[in-house]
Amino acid sequence: MRRWNGWGDSANHYPLKPSGLRFIQARLGNGIPLSDADLQAVLQQVPASRLPDHPLVSTDAELRVRHARGQSLPDWLAMRSGDFQVFPDGVALPQSSDQVRELLDWARANDIAVIPYGGGTSVVGHINPPAQERPVLTLSLAAMNQLLDLDTQSQIATFGAGTPGPQLEAQLREKGYLLGHFPQSWELSTVGGWVASRSSGQQSMRYGRIEQMFAGGRVETPRGTLEIPTIPASSAGPDLREMVLGSEGRLGVITEVKVRVTPLPETETFQVAFAPDWDTAVALVREMTQSKLPLSMLRLSNAEETRTHLMLAGHERLVGLLHRYLRLRGCGDNKCMITFGVTGPARQSAQTLAEARRRIRQAGGVMTGTLLGKKWEEARFRSPYLRHGLWEHGYAVDTLETCVDWSRVTETMNKMEQAIRDHAGDGEAVHVFTHLSHLYPQGSSIYTTYVFRCSPDYQQTHQRWQAMKTAASDVIARQGGTISHQHGVGRDHAPWLVKEKGEQGMAALQALMNHFDPEHHLNPGCLLDDSNRGE
Amino acid sequence: MRRWNGWGDSANHYPLKPSGLRFIQARLGNGIPLSDADLQAVLQQVPASRLPDHPLVSTDAELRVRHARGQSLPDWLAMRSGDFQVFPDGVALPQSSDQVRELLDWARANDIAVIPYGGGTSVVGHINPPAQERPVLTLSLAAMNQLLDLDTQSQIATFGAGTPGPQLEAQLREKGYLLGHFPQSWELSTVGGWVASRSSGQQSMRYGRIEQMFAGGRVETPRGTLEIPTIPASSAGPDLREMVLGSEGRLGVITEVKVRVTPLPETETFQVAFAPDWDTAVALVREMTQSKLPLSMLRLSNAEETRTHLMLAGHERLVGLLHRYLRLRGCGDNKCMITFGVTGPARQSAQTLAEARRRIRQAGGVMTGTLLGKKWEEARFRSPYLRHGLWEHGYAVDTLETCVDWSRVTETMNKMEQAIRDHAGDGEAVHVFTHLSHLYPQGSSIYTTYVFRCSPDYQQTHQRWQAMKTAASDVIARQGGTISHQHGVGRDHAPWLVKEKGEQGMAALQALMNHFDPEHHLNPGCLLDDSNRGE
Repeated sequence: MRRWNGWGDSANHYPLKPSGLRFIQARLGNGIPLSDADLQAVLQQVPASRLPDHPLVSTDAELRVRHARGQSLPDWLAMRSGDFQVFPDGVALPQSSDQVRELLDWARANDIAVIPYGGGTSVVGHINPPAQERPVLTLSLAAMNQLLDLDTQSQIATFGAGTPGPQLEAQLREKGYLLGHFPQSWELSTVGGWVASRSSGQQSMRYGRIEQMFAGGRVETPRGTLEIPTIPASSAGPDLREMVLGSEGRLGVITEVKVRVTPLPETETFQVAFAPDWDTAVALVREMTQSKLPLSMLRLSNAEETRTHLMLAGHERLVGLLHRYLRLRGCGDNKCMITFGVTGPARQSAQTLAEARRRIRQAGGVMTGTLLGKKWEEARFRSPYLRHGLWEHGYAVDTLETCVDWSRVTETMNKMEQAIRDHAGDGEAVHVFTHLSHLYPQGSSIYTTYVFRCSPDYQQTHQRWQAMKTAASDVIARQGGTISHQHGVGRDHAPWLVKEKGEQGMAALQALMNHFDPEHHLNPGCLLDDSNRGE
Repeated sequence: MRRWNGWGDSANHYPLKPSGLRFIQARLGNGIPLSDADLQAVLQQVPASRLPDHPLVSTDAELRVRHARGQSLPDWLAMRSGDFQVFPDGVALPQSSDQVRELLDWARANDIAVIPYGGGTSVVGHINPPAQERPVLTLSLAAMNQLLDLDTQSQIATFGAGTPGPQLEAQLREKGYLLGHFPQSWELSTVGGWVASRSSGQQSMRYGRIEQMFAGGRVETPRGTLEIPTIPASSAGPDLREMVLGSEGRLGVITEVKVRVTPLPETETFQVAFAPDWDTAVALVREMTQSKLPLSMLRLSNAEETRTHLMLAGHERLVGLLHRYLRLRGCGDNKCMITFGVTGPARQSAQTLAEARRRIRQAGGVMTGTLLGKKWEEARFRSPYLRHGLWEHGYAVDTLETCVDWSRVTETMNKMEQAIRDHAGDGEAVHVFTHLSHLYPQGSSIYTTYVFRCSPDYQQTHQRWQAMKTAASDVIARQGGTISHQHGVGRDHAPWLVKEKGEQGMAALQALMNHFDPEHHLNPGCLLDDSNRGE
């Protein structure tokens, strides 16, 4: 069963390995576990619903608890402490676009705020009900989770928007196809959520971001139904898909998604290499990307992440041997790990792999055997569970990300890391490390993880998190980066959006929202900070 | 000097070759040349300007004639007959974004309609001044034609929006870089025009459409300046670039364009192959595209276009030999020509070319030597001149294009061609042929050319064109295709846009225009049919 106060299914448990714990303790001091609230106590807090009756709406307390929070660190702290603050007044589970339409009309007539809900995996407050006078309905797409159509000639699949990653790929695999969108949240997040938040998957280098996959679909808006037809490319005016992508529920509820799929690949392999230092590694991965070498994935860990990753992996003896081997080959303390994937037809993949190896060696890098790549593949969706392993020992962990042009990548990474260190608070240390996870000819995403020891109480822990998050976000804005490359804006990033879009851009987004949702019933406060019916 | 009533520089002249003329005469009967008006006579018609004085605005009659029309067939007929109907009241040639800003403010204060003008190559009426009570200012970006910045690390170049293709590539080539956007209009069209009309170039398979190249820039809108920063990828809300792309001057005037460039390729080759028939050829090119074979270009001519192309090429003896050779190899009367390009690093290109050849042979196709590919390359920007060669002999030619999913490509092509034949009028024949010019995993563009004999007068010729154009556009809409894959909407395609965007989509576009340009000063009637200040 899915955890009510954490990530994933409660059957999945990945405790911190002893070597990893010692490593963290050495960096941050011994942790201070905070006590967790229990579900029964939380259920007692759930207030009476303010919603009128509707046959499609449940006001069950546990259902409301389970739809009250996402997966941001503030959400985690709220769920662990039991201090939820706001619950939705009810949850609807429509089974069709028509039922969504009906619920939207009902909400509008009864002045109810509506929060579209996919997998509930947001890490930026997308689905958190705002404290408002209006009652709040959470509209879950979970029951709309089927493959509705597959055009094999055009390679277009139509899904109910609530289809989560594993179910989506299983339904396609039966027919010999694959979407290939693998964000870290893949186990729980949904295709509609990917579109609404403009998400990106681990193999976006081959399959594209969700922007490239999203071919059309259906959106129920307060003004009516927006149907976007599938057209491979068009010069006929601004692209409506690009208004829906990243709209975070503000324009309407995405109910059907048409995505571009591909036949299952003939071959796939993930490989790990090391480069002697950061500058060498960045030049290498940039050149690999800019020359359009057809990898399916490429990521680069900085030295601290490389060290941390190898420590947390366990297998101390094997890792010790690896360190010694790499040192002999010129990759010492500053070595950086490069993980890459090659996917596709066998002949083409063999050529690509050979070419990647050639370039890595030419740059002074060292390839390793197949084990590390296999390990990465096994654990590719496991990072969200890391929070549990650390929490048990009194540590909190969060991530931050952006994307900037190549000319600013290293400087931005360093400044983000430094800002987090400078704001850990209370004289505490913070363990910070980074990788470049999505590489483009123009630049790269920067994905920073920071681990810190909990303060003696929840409030203080939250305050310290807020100071680090704010400082790093300010750096991102000053560096001209996006406030999010893959997590979206939600409520947590909304204050920074104007730095990216500008006053004119924000006004344009507001104009679109005012058009589709004139009374701001949909997800108020998300994307644009207008939870009090701003205007 | 650039022709005032046709395509390109008057020094360039490509008459129809005798074999081509005989071929067309056999199909359509002998042509009836219509008499051309001369420039002096047209200058006499230019009425007094209704504009108040402004130091940046010229009201010179010839300048107004030269900015009154684009390159659609109706434009051609207007320029040739001398019946221009409407002229702009003046032409401004600003040298900076600030001057554009000043002109926009002036236009707003004086209730002047403004038409942003790039290379004047629109084939759908983008830049035609509407007949209105308000005076019309054509705002040409021609003086803003310089490379302003090049970030070689991030591969981003910044250009003045009025930079035309050859000047853009020459400035980049000096630094070792290339944009790679080669629409047929390349000799005259501008980077700002490409963005405003969402254009696509011949090698979009490698370099992308302008959507993939456009990284950011500056747009002067009636509301103020919209600056779009360069960010490689972002999940932070709807993408502002995608609102500007295809906005056709309705939201503002694009003054600076930042584009993604690449180092000059190591190697490039264009090759020609033949397949025995259409169905075999479509299956082959679809499979090549869907397997992501990294070609830089791929196009497929149907049997009629193949025949026509070889006939118009001249070199009768050589072509005769080619026909015999191909017949021996299984490619007879129904053969279809495949033209493809391979561009990039030498090793990778060699592998790609070998793979392409292998697949073509496997499908029963026949490769030819390098001559036909070289010929294609030499003549790649020559098609717009074809209109002159035919016109001299009393024939008119136009093109129509769309893009649809693979499951509808062949049916749509056949129905478009049939609709044109059915509406040639006056018992006249029309010579119709088609190629697929831009192939995507999801589907393909369809590019249809039709040649017909002029009627004894201009009006009748225009009416017959209108009937064919309308019938084919109706087919496109019924087939679920875009009303334009690469030419844009302008005024000529505006009536069909609602079929593609839907009522809700149209309302959203209108809301954006109302926001940025509340009094509809910018390019009224373009994209949305609201030239009379409709709302």
